[in-house]
Amino acid sequence: MFISFEGTEGVGKTTLIRKIYDYLVSLGQDVVLTREPGGTPMAENIRSLLLSVNNEEKMCNDTELLLMYAARAQHLNQVILPALAAGKTVLCDRFTDASFAYQCAGRGLSEEKLQLLNDNFVSKMPDFTFWLDAPIELGMTRARARGELDRFEQEKAAFFEKVRSGYETLSVRHAERVKRLDASQTADQVFAQALAYL
Amino acid sequence: MFISFEGTEGVGKTTLIRKIYDYLVSLGQDVVLTREPGGTPMAENIRSLLLSVNNEEKMCNDTELLLMYAARAQHLNQVILPALAAGKTVLCDRFTDASFAYQCAGRGLSEEKLQLLNDNFVSKMPDFTFWLDAPIELGMTRARARGELDRFEQEKAAFFEKVRSGYETLSVRHAERVKRLDASQTADQVFAQALAYL
Repeated sequence: MFISFEGTEGVGKTTLIRKIYDYLVSLGQDVVLTREPGGTPMAENIRSLLLSVNNEEKMCNDTELLLMYAARAQHLNQVILPALAAGKTVLCDRFTDASFAYQCAGRGLSEEKLQLLNDNFVSKMPDFTFWLDAPIELGMTRARARGELDRFEQEKAAFFEKVRSGYETLSVRHAERVKRLDASQTADQVFAQALAYL
Repeated sequence: MFISFEGTEGVGKTTLIRKIYDYLVSLGQDVVLTREPGGTPMAENIRSLLLSVNNEEKMCNDTELLLMYAARAQHLNQVILPALAAGKTVLCDRFTDASFAYQCAGRGLSEEKLQLLNDNFVSKMPDFTFWLDAPIELGMTRARARGELDRFEQEKAAFFEKVRSGYETLSVRHAERVKRLDASQTADQVFAQALAYL
Protein backbone atom coordinates (compact mmCIF):
# COMPACT_ATOMS: atom_id res chain seq x y z
CA MET A 1 0.00 0.00 0.00
CA PHE A 2 1.39 3.37 -1.15
CA ILE A 3 -0.13 6.38 0.64
CA SER A 4 0.77 10.00 -0.09
CA PHE A 5 0.06 13.12 1.95
CA GLU A 6 -0.53 16.45 0.26
CA GLY A 7 -1.27 20.03 1.18
CA THR A 8 0.16 23.53 1.33
CA GLU A 9 2.73 24.68 3.93
CA GLY A 10 1.99 24.21 7.64
CA VAL A 11 -1.18 22.11 7.34
CA GLY A 12 0.17 19.38 9.64
CA LYS A 13 1.33 16.69 7.21
CA THR A 14 4.35 15.69 9.29
CA THR A 15 2.26 15.26 12.47
CA LEU A 16 -0.39 13.17 10.70
CA ILE A 17 2.16 10.98 8.92
CA ARG A 18 3.90 10.29 12.23
CA LYS A 19 0.61 9.29 13.89
CA ILE A 20 -0.34 6.98 11.03
CA TYR A 21 3.18 5.52 11.00
CA ASP A 22 2.99 4.72 14.74
CA TYR A 23 -0.50 3.27 14.30
CA LEU A 24 0.45 0.98 11.41
CA VAL A 25 3.64 -0.15 13.15
CA SER A 26 1.56 -0.97 16.26
CA LEU A 27 -0.51 -3.27 14.00
CA GLY A 28 2.72 -5.07 13.07
CA GLN A 29 3.07 -3.59 9.60
CA ASP A 30 6.43 -2.91 7.97
CA VAL A 31 6.22 0.79 7.14
CA VAL A 32 8.55 3.12 5.21
CA LEU A 33 8.22 6.81 5.98
CA THR A 34 9.62 9.05 3.25
CA ARG A 35 9.17 12.42 1.55
CA GLU A 36 9.42 14.38 -1.70
CA PRO A 37 11.34 16.05 -3.07
CA GLY A 38 13.98 13.85 -1.49
CA GLY A 39 13.85 10.42 0.10
CA THR A 40 17.37 9.30 -0.92
CA PRO A 41 20.69 11.09 -0.29
CA MET A 42 20.94 11.99 -3.99
CA ALA A 43 17.32 13.15 -4.20
CA GLU A 44 17.82 15.18 -1.01
CA ASN A 45 20.66 17.00 -2.80
CA ILE A 46 18.20 17.85 -5.56
CA ARG A 47 15.73 18.98 -2.87
CA SER A 48 18.38 21.41 -1.57
CA LEU A 49 18.69 22.95 -5.03
CA LEU A 50 14.90 23.23 -5.24
CA LEU A 51 14.30 24.79 -1.84
CA SER A 52 17.31 27.07 -1.47
CA VAL A 53 16.65 30.76 -1.85
CA ASN A 54 18.76 32.29 -4.66
CA ASN A 55 18.42 36.01 -5.13
CA GLU A 56 20.98 36.09 -7.96
CA GLU A 57 19.27 33.74 -10.40
CA LYS A 58 15.57 32.96 -10.78
CA MET A 59 14.81 29.27 -11.26
CA CYS A 60 12.78 28.79 -14.48
CA ASN A 61 9.46 26.94 -14.18
CA ASP A 62 10.65 24.19 -16.53
CA THR A 63 13.81 23.75 -14.45
CA GLU A 64 11.77 23.43 -11.26
CA LEU A 65 9.46 20.85 -12.81
CA LEU A 66 12.31 18.76 -14.26
CA LEU A 67 14.28 18.84 -11.00
CA MET A 68 11.16 17.61 -9.18
CA TYR A 69 10.86 14.69 -11.59
CA ALA A 70 14.60 13.93 -11.45
CA ALA A 71 14.34 13.63 -7.65
CA ARG A 72 11.12 11.61 -8.05
CA ALA A 73 12.68 9.16 -10.52
CA GLN A 74 15.52 8.49 -8.09
CA HIS A 75 13.21 8.16 -5.09
CA LEU A 76 10.69 5.96 -6.88
CA ASN A 77 13.27 3.55 -8.26
CA GLN A 78 15.57 3.40 -5.23
CA VAL A 79 13.07 3.51 -2.36
CA ILE A 80 9.35 3.31 -3.16
CA LEU A 81 9.25 0.50 -5.74
CA PRO A 82 11.67 -1.78 -3.82
CA ALA A 83 9.70 -1.20 -0.57
CA LEU A 84 6.36 -2.01 -2.23
CA ALA A 85 7.88 -5.07 -3.89
CA ALA A 86 8.97 -6.24 -0.43
CA GLY A 87 5.40 -5.93 0.83
CA LYS A 88 5.96 -2.80 2.89
CA THR A 89 3.58 0.12 3.32
CA VAL A 90 4.99 3.41 2.04
CA LEU A 91 3.91 6.72 3.59
CA CYS A 92 5.15 9.58 1.42
CA ASP A 93 5.04 13.29 2.27
CA ARG A 94 4.04 14.67 -1.18
CA PHE A 95 4.16 12.98 -4.59
CA THR A 96 3.01 13.79 -8.17
CA ASP A 97 -0.13 15.61 -7.00
CA ALA A 98 2.16 18.26 -5.50
CA SER A 99 3.63 18.86 -8.96
CA PHE A 100 0.12 19.40 -10.34
CA ALA A 101 -0.82 21.73 -7.48
CA TYR A 102 2.44 23.72 -7.26
CA GLN A 103 3.83 23.72 -10.79
CA CYS A 104 0.62 23.64 -12.86
CA ALA A 105 -2.04 25.30 -10.70
CA GLY A 106 0.48 27.49 -8.84
CA ARG A 107 3.03 28.43 -11.52
CA GLY A 108 0.78 28.04 -14.55
CA LEU A 109 2.79 25.30 -16.29
CA SER A 110 0.75 23.29 -18.82
CA GLU A 111 -0.95 20.13 -17.62
CA GLU A 112 0.20 18.40 -20.81
CA LYS A 113 3.87 18.76 -19.79
CA LEU A 114 3.11 17.29 -16.39
CA GLN A 115 1.08 14.48 -17.88
CA LEU A 116 3.83 13.38 -20.21
CA LEU A 117 6.33 13.34 -17.35
CA ASN A 118 3.91 11.26 -15.29
CA ASP A 119 3.24 8.91 -18.22
CA ASN A 120 6.93 8.35 -18.95
CA PHE A 121 8.73 8.65 -15.63
CA VAL A 122 6.23 7.64 -12.94
CA SER A 123 5.42 3.95 -13.14
CA LYS A 124 3.49 3.82 -9.85
CA MET A 125 0.86 6.20 -8.47
CA PRO A 126 -0.25 6.23 -4.81
CA ASP A 127 -3.10 3.90 -3.92
CA PHE A 128 -4.47 6.48 -1.55
CA THR A 129 -3.83 10.20 -1.00
CA PHE A 130 -4.75 12.42 1.93
CA TRP A 131 -5.13 16.10 1.10
CA LEU A 132 -4.81 18.16 4.29
CA ASP A 133 -6.79 21.30 3.65
CA ALA A 134 -6.78 24.40 5.86
CA PRO A 135 -7.11 28.13 5.24
CA ILE A 136 -3.84 29.41 3.75
CA GLU A 137 -3.27 31.98 6.51
CA LEU A 138 -3.47 29.30 9.21
CA GLY A 139 -0.81 27.16 7.50
CA MET A 140 1.45 30.12 6.78
CA THR A 141 1.32 31.19 10.42
CA ARG A 142 2.45 27.68 11.42
CA ALA A 143 5.18 27.63 8.73
CA ARG A 144 6.52 31.03 9.81
CA ALA A 145 6.64 29.83 13.43
CA ARG A 146 8.97 26.98 12.32
CA GLY A 147 11.68 29.48 11.35
CA GLU A 148 13.27 30.63 8.13
CA LEU A 149 11.11 30.16 5.03
CA ASP A 150 12.37 28.18 2.01
CA ARG A 151 11.95 29.21 -1.64
CA PHE A 152 8.40 27.84 -1.82
CA GLU A 153 7.33 29.04 1.60
CA GLN A 154 8.37 32.57 0.61
CA GLU A 155 5.63 32.69 -2.04
CA LYS A 156 2.68 35.00 -1.44
CA ALA A 157 -0.81 34.00 -0.29
CA ALA A 158 -2.21 34.34 -3.85
CA PHE A 159 0.17 31.57 -5.00
CA PHE A 160 -0.94 29.22 -2.22
CA GLU A 161 -4.60 29.92 -3.00
CA LYS A 162 -3.90 28.66 -6.53
CA VAL A 163 -2.07 25.62 -5.14
CA ARG A 164 -5.00 24.91 -2.85
CA SER A 165 -7.46 25.12 -5.72
CA GLY A 166 -5.19 22.73 -7.63
CA TYR A 167 -5.57 20.17 -4.85
CA GLU A 168 -9.32 20.79 -4.88
CA THR A 169 -9.39 20.00 -8.61
CA LEU A 170 -7.53 16.73 -7.96
CA SER A 171 -9.87 15.75 -5.12
CA VAL A 172 -12.79 16.05 -7.54
CA ARG A 173 -11.04 14.52 -10.56
CA HIS A 174 -9.66 11.55 -8.58
CA ALA A 175 -12.35 11.39 -5.88
CA GLU A 176 -11.79 7.64 -5.36
CA ARG A 177 -8.11 8.20 -4.47
CA VAL A 178 -7.69 11.75 -3.11
CA LYS A 179 -9.48 12.33 0.21
CA ARG A 180 -9.78 15.78 1.75
CA LEU A 181 -9.08 16.10 5.48
CA ASP A 182 -10.14 19.21 7.37
CA ALA A 183 -6.73 20.29 8.66
CA SER A 184 -8.08 23.21 10.65
CA GLN A 185 -9.16 20.62 13.27
CA THR A 186 -6.88 19.41 16.07
CA ALA A 187 -4.19 16.88 15.18
CA ASP A 188 -6.18 14.10 16.91
CA GLN A 189 -9.33 14.96 14.99
CA VAL A 190 -7.43 14.95 11.67
CA PHE A 191 -5.92 11.58 12.57
CA ALA A 192 -9.37 10.18 13.43
CA GLN A 193 -10.77 11.41 10.11
CA ALA A 194 -7.83 9.79 8.27
CA LEU A 195 -8.29 6.48 10.12
CA ALA A 196 -11.97 6.44 9.18
CA TYR A 197 -10.93 6.50 5.50
CA LEU A 198 -8.21 3.88 5.98
CA MET B 1 23.84 31.64 -34.94
CA PHE B 2 23.82 28.83 -32.37
CA ILE B 3 26.68 26.34 -32.79
CA SER B 4 27.17 23.27 -30.60
CA PHE B 5 30.22 21.04 -30.22
CA GLU B 6 29.86 17.35 -29.51
CA GLY B 7 32.03 14.32 -28.94
CA THR B 8 33.27 11.84 -26.37
CA GLU B 9 35.83 12.67 -23.66
CA GLY B 10 39.21 14.15 -24.64
CA VAL B 11 38.50 14.76 -28.34
CA GLY B 12 39.58 18.42 -28.13
CA LYS B 13 36.24 20.28 -27.96
CA THR B 14 37.55 22.95 -25.59
CA THR B 15 40.55 23.72 -27.79
CA LEU B 16 38.45 23.98 -30.95
CA ILE B 17 35.78 26.14 -29.30
CA ARG B 18 38.44 28.52 -28.04
CA LYS B 19 39.97 28.83 -31.52
CA ILE B 20 36.59 29.48 -33.13
CA TYR B 21 35.72 31.95 -30.39
CA ASP B 22 38.94 33.92 -30.99
CA TYR B 23 38.37 33.81 -34.74
CA LEU B 24 34.79 35.10 -34.58
CA VAL B 25 35.71 37.80 -32.07
CA SER B 26 38.53 38.89 -34.42
CA LEU B 27 35.83 39.36 -37.08
CA GLY B 28 34.03 41.72 -34.70
CA GLN B 29 31.25 39.32 -33.71
CA ASP B 30 29.65 39.32 -30.27
CA VAL B 31 30.17 35.72 -29.11
CA VAL B 32 28.96 33.84 -26.03
CA LEU B 33 30.99 30.79 -25.04
CA THR B 34 29.11 28.36 -22.82
CA ARG B 35 28.73 24.69 -21.97
CA GLU B 36 26.35 21.91 -20.92
CA PRO B 37 25.46 20.63 -18.48
CA GLY B 38 25.91 24.02 -16.85
CA GLY B 39 26.23 27.52 -18.26
CA THR B 40 24.54 29.35 -15.36
CA PRO B 41 25.44 29.18 -11.62
CA MET B 42 22.28 27.15 -10.94
CA ALA B 43 22.84 24.81 -13.90
CA GLU B 44 26.48 24.38 -12.82
CA ASN B 45 25.16 23.14 -9.45
CA ILE B 46 23.10 20.55 -11.33
CA ARG B 47 26.25 19.68 -13.31
CA SER B 48 28.06 18.98 -10.03
CA LEU B 49 25.34 16.50 -9.07
CA LEU B 50 25.60 14.85 -12.49
CA LEU B 51 29.38 14.51 -12.61
CA SER B 52 30.22 13.73 -9.00
CA VAL B 53 31.19 10.16 -8.28
CA ASN B 54 28.92 8.57 -5.66
CA ASN B 55 29.80 5.05 -4.63
CA GLU B 56 26.95 4.85 -2.10
CA GLU B 57 24.01 5.41 -4.44
CA LYS B 58 23.73 4.68 -8.16
CA MET B 59 22.08 7.43 -10.18
CA CYS B 60 19.13 6.00 -12.15
CA ASN B 61 19.09 6.55 -15.90
CA ASP B 62 15.82 8.52 -15.69
CA THR B 63 17.30 10.74 -12.97
CA GLU B 64 20.36 11.44 -15.10
CA LEU B 65 18.25 12.32 -18.14
CA LEU B 66 15.88 14.60 -16.18
CA LEU B 67 18.77 16.38 -14.43
CA MET B 68 20.34 17.02 -17.85
CA TYR B 69 17.10 18.58 -19.09
CA ALA B 70 16.61 20.59 -15.88
CA ALA B 71 20.06 22.12 -16.37
CA ARG B 72 19.30 22.61 -20.08
CA ALA B 73 16.00 24.39 -19.42
CA GLN B 74 17.76 26.83 -17.10
CA HIS B 75 20.67 27.39 -19.49
CA LEU B 76 18.47 27.79 -22.56
CA ASN B 77 16.10 30.28 -20.95
CA GLN B 78 18.66 32.28 -18.99
CA VAL B 79 21.61 32.36 -21.39
CA ILE B 80 21.14 30.95 -24.89
CA LEU B 81 17.78 32.43 -25.92
CA PRO B 82 18.54 35.94 -24.54
CA ALA B 83 21.96 35.90 -26.29
CA LEU B 84 20.46 34.85 -29.63
CA ALA B 85 17.68 37.44 -29.25
CA ALA B 86 20.41 40.07 -28.78
CA GLY B 87 22.02 39.01 -32.06
CA LYS B 88 24.97 37.23 -30.48
CA THR B 89 26.63 34.03 -31.68
CA VAL B 90 26.45 31.20 -29.13
CA LEU B 91 29.14 28.51 -29.00
CA CYS B 92 28.00 25.69 -26.74
CA ASP B 93 30.10 22.76 -25.53
CA ARG B 94 27.48 19.98 -25.84
CA PHE B 95 23.68 20.24 -26.20
CA THR B 96 20.74 17.86 -26.84
CA ASP B 97 22.76 15.60 -29.17
CA ALA B 98 24.86 14.66 -26.14
CA SER B 99 21.69 13.38 -24.43
CA PHE B 100 20.93 11.22 -27.43
CA ALA B 101 24.51 9.90 -27.59
CA TYR B 102 25.09 9.38 -23.84
CA GLN B 103 21.65 8.61 -22.42
CA CYS B 104 20.01 6.81 -25.37
CA ALA B 105 22.87 5.22 -27.33
CA GLY B 106 25.12 4.87 -24.26
CA ARG B 107 22.70 3.99 -21.45
CA GLY B 108 19.93 2.49 -23.56
CA LEU B 109 17.16 4.91 -22.62
CA SER B 110 14.33 5.03 -25.14
CA GLU B 111 14.50 7.61 -27.91
CA GLU B 112 10.82 8.36 -27.33
CA LYS B 113 11.54 9.69 -23.83
CA LEU B 114 14.26 11.92 -25.19
CA GLN B 115 12.10 13.11 -28.05
CA LEU B 116 9.27 14.18 -25.79
CA LEU B 117 11.69 16.12 -23.57
CA ASN B 118 13.11 17.82 -26.67
CA ASP B 119 9.64 18.57 -28.02
CA ASN B 120 8.40 20.06 -24.76
CA PHE B 121 11.42 21.62 -23.09
CA VAL B 122 13.84 22.60 -25.88
CA SER B 123 12.44 25.46 -27.95
CA LYS B 124 15.64 26.08 -29.93
CA MET B 125 18.02 23.61 -31.56
CA PRO B 126 21.56 24.49 -32.73
CA ASP B 127 21.84 25.83 -36.27
CA PHE B 128 25.08 23.96 -36.71
CA THR B 129 26.83 21.16 -34.79
CA PHE B 130 30.42 19.96 -34.95
CA TRP B 131 30.97 16.35 -33.95
CA LEU B 132 34.63 15.82 -33.04
CA ASP B 133 35.31 12.17 -33.72
CA ALA B 134 38.43 10.30 -32.67
CA PRO B 135 39.22 6.72 -31.63
CA ILE B 136 37.95 6.21 -28.07
CA GLU B 137 41.35 5.19 -26.71
CA LEU B 138 42.97 8.40 -27.96
CA GLY B 139 40.37 10.56 -26.19
CA MET B 140 40.52 8.53 -22.98
CA THR B 141 44.30 8.87 -22.86
CA ARG B 142 43.91 12.65 -23.10
CA ALA B 143 41.10 12.66 -20.49
CA ARG B 144 43.17 10.58 -18.06
CA ALA B 145 46.11 12.96 -18.53
CA ARG B 146 43.86 15.83 -17.32
CA GLY B 147 43.56 14.26 -13.86
CA GLU B 148 40.81 12.66 -11.83
CA LEU B 149 37.95 11.22 -13.90
CA ASP B 150 34.33 12.31 -13.34
CA ARG B 151 31.31 9.97 -13.22
CA PHE B 152 31.00 9.84 -17.01
CA GLU B 153 34.73 9.63 -17.71
CA GLN B 154 34.93 6.58 -15.42
CA GLU B 155 32.75 4.59 -17.83
CA LYS B 156 34.38 1.78 -19.78
CA ALA B 157 35.46 1.87 -23.43
CA ALA B 158 32.41 -0.20 -24.49
CA PHE B 159 30.14 2.60 -23.21
CA PHE B 160 32.02 5.25 -25.21
CA GLU B 161 31.89 3.10 -28.34
CA LYS B 162 28.11 3.17 -28.01
CA VAL B 163 28.16 6.93 -27.45
CA ARG B 164 30.33 7.36 -30.51
CA SER B 165 27.96 5.29 -32.63
CA GLY B 166 25.13 7.46 -31.29
CA TYR B 167 26.88 10.53 -32.67
CA GLU B 168 27.42 8.70 -35.94
CA THR B 169 23.67 8.02 -36.15
CA LEU B 170 22.97 11.73 -35.63
CA SER B 171 25.50 12.79 -38.26
CA VAL B 172 23.62 10.65 -40.79
CA ARG B 173 20.12 11.49 -39.58
CA HIS B 174 20.79 15.25 -39.44
CA ALA B 175 23.50 15.43 -42.12
CA GLU B 176 22.62 19.06 -42.96
CA ARG B 177 23.30 20.16 -39.36
CA VAL B 178 25.77 17.72 -37.75
CA LYS B 179 29.25 17.78 -39.34
CA ARG B 180 31.90 15.24 -38.44
CA LEU B 181 35.42 16.55 -37.81
CA ASP B 182 38.38 14.16 -37.74
CA ALA B 183 39.62 14.88 -34.21
CA SER B 184 42.63 12.59 -34.52
CA GLN B 185 44.28 15.41 -36.54
CA THR B 186 46.24 18.25 -34.95
CA ALA B 187 44.27 21.07 -33.32
CA ASP B 188 45.09 23.40 -36.23
CA GLN B 189 43.92 20.87 -38.80
CA VAL B 190 40.64 20.34 -36.89
CA PHE B 191 40.17 24.13 -36.74
CA ALA B 192 40.80 24.44 -40.50
CA GLN B 193 38.27 21.69 -41.22
CA ALA B 194 35.70 23.45 -39.01
CA LEU B 195 36.33 26.81 -40.70
CA ALA B 196 35.79 25.25 -44.11
CA TYR B 197 32.29 24.24 -42.98
CA LEU B 198 31.56 27.61 -41.39
